[in-house]
Amino acid sequence: MRRAFDEARAAAGAGEVPIGAVVVKDGVIISSAHNLPRTRCDPTAHAEVLAIREAARALGNERLDGCDLWVSLEPCAMCAGAIVHARIGRLYYAAADPKGGAVAHGGRIFDQPTCLHRPEVYSGMGEDEAAQMLRDFFAARR
Amino acid sequence: MRRAFDEARAAAGAGEVPIGAVVVKDGVIISSAHNLPRTRCDPTAHAEVLAIREAARALGNERLDGCDLWVSLEPCAMCAGAIVHARIGRLYYAAADPKGGAVAHGGRIFDQPTCLHRPEVYSGMGEDEAAQMLRDFFAARR
Repeated sequence: MRRAFDEARAAAGAGEVPIGAVVVKDGVIISSAHNLPRTRCDPTAHAEVLAIREAARALGNERLDGCDLWVSLEPCAMCAGAIVHARIGRLYYAAADPKGGAVAHGGRIFDQPTCLHRPEVYSGMGEDEAAQMLRDFFAARR
Repeated sequence: MRRAFDEARAAAGAGEVPIGAVVVKDGVIISSAHNLPRTRCDPTAHAEVLAIREAARALGNERLDGCDLWVSLEPCAMCAGAIVHARIGRLYYAAADPKGGAVAHGGRIFDQPTCLHRPEVYSGMGEDEAAQMLRDFFAARR
């Protein structure tokens, strides 16, 4: 999660919402990324999507069996869907996102009876730090 | 929708699930794409995500204001989330997808009270042809 927070700080430095994500397999970091939708002109360039895409490329497989995803904020519907398609084994997220999250809020993607793959979900580790980064970012832009 | 079906057929020809998507603005096709997760080793490479990414790049804006998306199948949660982030104005899809869809089924992404942007949604045009393409594809692979 430390590395995900480093990525989140890098996002803030680039004027992007501070969210970072890391894909880990067997204790080794396969990929890490931060939010870049504005920089890349790509509405799908959330940290989780970028980290998953990079990991799939690195491992040569569209399915990330045995991989875990660490992310600083509860994933949105798009990212939760990407986690399902990638077959992520365990999802660790720091802060909850009652407005945009779709794991424990909103569409609750993994709880749908038709969901094809459900990762184990762990949350709350480092949530204060992750939430503070987001508050600082939005406060500075007001 | 004709062009989306052409893209879907191209996907089947490449051994990918036959789904195609087209982004249109002011009556002009901005981008079109088909499913390519296996070919690209990218679990996020659904037709809708690829078409949205290409359109954002082409228009130089992560927000596709005034753009419509035509797709041969009801979008999944990942693609519905991407549609929200891209601010797609109108979504037209052919066949419903009770198993994987997240517009009229599953997570019903646009119906969540916290959903930041709701496209107008139209469905059913050409649904028989779209569904038949999918049935033929999966029948041939069994």
